Amino acid sequence: MKVLPPSGFRDFLPEEAATRAAMMESISKIYRSHGFQPIGMPVLENLSTLQGKGGGSDNEKLIFKVMKRGDQLEAGYQEISAKVESENQRRNFDSLADMGLRFDLTLPLARYCARFKEQLPKPFKVFQMGPVWRADRPQKGRFREFFQCDVDIVGSKEIGAEIDCLSAILDVFEFFQIDGIELHLNDRRLLVSAGEKLGVESNQWAAFLVCLDKLDKIGVDGVKKELAEKEILTASQLAAVDPLVQGGAAAEDFFASVNPEAHASVKEILAILAQRNRKEESYHFTTNLVRGQDYYTGSIFEIRHAKLAGSLGGGGRYNRLLEVFGSADTPAFGGSIGFERLALILSEEGKLSVGDSVPHVFFPLFQENLRAPLMKLSAEIRRLGLRADIFPDAAKLKNQFRYADERKIPFVALLGEEELKAGQIKLKTMATREEITLPLNEFVPTLEKLCKQ
Amino acid sequence: MKVLPPSGFRDFLPEEAATRAAMMESISKIYRSHGFQPIGMPVLENLSTLQGKGGGSDNEKLIFKVMKRGDQLEAGYQEISAKVESENQRRNFDSLADMGLRFDLTLPLARYCARFKEQLPKPFKVFQMGPVWRADRPQKGRFREFFQCDVDIVGSKEIGAEIDCLSAILDVFEFFQIDGIELHLNDRRLLVSAGEKLGVESNQWAAFLVCLDKLDKIGVDGVKKELAEKEILTASQLAAVDPLVQGGAAAEDFFASVNPEAHASVKEILAILAQRNRKEESYHFTTNLVRGQDYYTGSIFEIRHAKLAGSLGGGGRYNRLLEVFGSADTPAFGGSIGFERLALILSEEGKLSVGDSVPHVFFPLFQENLRAPLMKLSAEIRRLGLRADIFPDAAKLKNQFRYADERKIPFVALLGEEELKAGQIKLKTMATREEITLPLNEFVPTLEKLCKQ
Repeated sequence: MKVLPPSGFRDFLPEEAATRAAMMESISKIYRSHGFQPIGMPVLENLSTLQGKGGGSDNEKLIFKVMKRGDQLEAGYQEISAKVESENQRRNFDSLADMGLRFDLTLPLARYCARFKEQLPKPFKVFQMGPVWRADRPQKGRFREFFQCDVDIVGSKEIGAEIDCLSAILDVFEFFQIDGIELHLNDRRLLVSAGEKLGVESNQWAAFLVCLDKLDKIGVDGVKKELAEKEILTASQLAAVDPLVQGGAAAEDFFASVNPEAHASVKEILAILAQRNRKEESYHFTTNLVRGQDYYTGSIFEIRHAKLAGSLGGGGRYNRLLEVFGSADTPAFGGSIGFERLALILSEEGKLSVGDSVPHVFFPLFQENLRAPLMKLSAEIRRLGLRADIFPDAAKLKNQFRYADERKIPFVALLGEEELKAGQIKLKTMATREEITLPLNEFVPTLEKLCKQ
Repeated sequence: MKVLPPSGFRDFLPEEAATRAAMMESISKIYRSHGFQPIGMPVLENLSTLQGKGGGSDNEKLIFKVMKRGDQLEAGYQEISAKVESENQRRNFDSLADMGLRFDLTLPLARYCARFKEQLPKPFKVFQMGPVWRADRPQKGRFREFFQCDVDIVGSKEIGAEIDCLSAILDVFEFFQIDGIELHLNDRRLLVSAGEKLGVESNQWAAFLVCLDKLDKIGVDGVKKELAEKEILTASQLAAVDPLVQGGAAAEDFFASVNPEAHASVKEILAILAQRNRKEESYHFTTNLVRGQDYYTGSIFEIRHAKLAGSLGGGGRYNRLLEVFGSADTPAFGGSIGFERLALILSEEGKLSVGDSVPHVFFPLFQENLRAPLMKLSAEIRRLGLRADIFPDAAKLKNQFRYADERKIPFVALLGEEELKAGQIKLKTMATREEITLPLNEFVPTLEKLCKQ
């Protein structure tokens, strides 16, 4: 049998698992410190929920679908068999599946908030940390199971939601001492107003946004060339799009003229966040920022890093997503930290710590009858909040010490038959290989002092 | 669109989610304090891994299967269509699926340990906490997604592995102050030796164990009657099975005669654990304990509670499971805490705490221009490790106070235009509705003192 996980999925060795757990704990603590609450949801959703209007077309194609079971599976199969398909058409197998793995945390949140509308605080400040799944083609650095860390405020239409969520997200990067963080902000309403002003045809709208999004990659001329060649804009529209494609002050002015309200809101959010006054952060009105999801209706943002391609996080306002679940008038804003990229940066910068998964002290087991006194000492040590590890077998001492070395345990305590008779124990500091002999009753307090130094 | 999760799956409201997170954190801390390390594995495994020999036949039937995608799905479908099935035979749809959701944490662990054999400490003390999925028929108290908290020691064949894992598990119940915890221990080797001695036919072996397992439910006579009626044992075998079915000392003596070594090992584990000497725990040699999984080869255990049917945890030794993945000679022992039942007990006993998800202080927002000073104060408060929440909108004050009440926030700080001008702030203790006015620079230290009291 194969020892590898499925293609595109990852196992984590203990040290990496420990660092990831420590990261998640820190992020969760920061989100809580801003007043966000945790919730719990299943990783599976009904397929109809995931494929609903709110799903965002790109991710919908990437759903891992869970096969029906028993009679329903047989019925689903019969349904497909009965259908006569034209030769070139791909068969639709959806009648075989009833559930899917969530591809993000936002759509399930919308369902959840619609369900519990009457029971949740208003506004509802919520955070979620967990895996999502996308059936992307596996490639370097892209995984089919990856973590997201979301904050959302549901039920608030003012810019306070933006500021609260973005403050919490920026605090995470500050906590991990990542310099060069850039917040890029834009607003879908500005793009929509600009599109209306330019008279972009509705069937060209998506292509227009995709093209605008490429400004950083292909430059002003590249974007204009593509808009012309793909006949997204007419010649007269092309002349008018100039300020928007230029970016910077020209684009901002253009936006201010087509939608002064949304323009002012972006400026205000940036101005308030700038009062955080942290030199490791910079704030940008990025007029060509588009973001992929269909459901965004207002502010959209991305966290970038000066030295990295791609984003470290992103999100936006989705004032109408809850309508899909029958909950009208529920404006919401939220965003996500790209946990995997953050982990990569921290690992490259050597900033990860295994946290609290290394025992403070290790007890080799010399012989079976010494286990009971070691268990007693360990229990005392654990009551002090420290971690104690006893070797399970009375194996060769060499192997036991190798174990302590491999696990990088700082202290080893030796209790042999002789020591026990004399009421003593030896305590060895692994870094210095220094060894002291202590009366048994002084051992635990001495260890505590050494560990808490 | 439906607002409910799929049938058999659960959403958790914020308070319950917070208590569950706090429980997991405590369990993880206890496992770490015994020297166990975390690892990371995907929730999906290749279907062939889950359906391998080691999987345990019962759970294999309950796998949620993930449908193949694209051309592979079409090919899988063609494979089924081409097969001519006899009318009464159920179609096998497995060619449509390539992965499945894990149904426990042990089988993936075996794959993981075989994969990383050379890189892991020997023995490898590992813990896992996470969801597993079983396509059981949903019913009250039985869920299709539920949490397990496992500890395992891989690479140790001595009883030290049993003692270490069981000590950690019992410490969890002690931490949550659950009295009346019973450890029930038995050994598969004893059952096998007894079966050999009695001459149970190999095709009756499973039925024999199932019947023996019912002793608590149907009593000695019931078991004997069923063994006879179902022709599991012959008349002469029935006479010889008496001591085993009687349980207690008679069964122990019978075990001692058929396999003295395994008998001594059970007695020794119980004797050593009894030295924990905690009156809230009791230790039992339960000769009719069977446990369901095929892969157990030695000690098996169950945690029960005097007042509850069913178990609060269980596990056993699986010395040969890693062979399935090509890793010979890797003895292992492990066990699991039934997280959902533990949560239920704690909730019934009113012992759950929402832990650290309630903000310490809440700032209503009187008007937009007061947001910046509130953000500054909040940042200071968070640096002290406290949680501060600002209302996102300058909404009606009544609504803002209702929010503070709903979230049970202990302190509310009021900073209006007037207070700001006077360099003051009001601090209200919600329990007493007492309000004091403080100079702004005394506010944070005062709050800290109140919160850390």
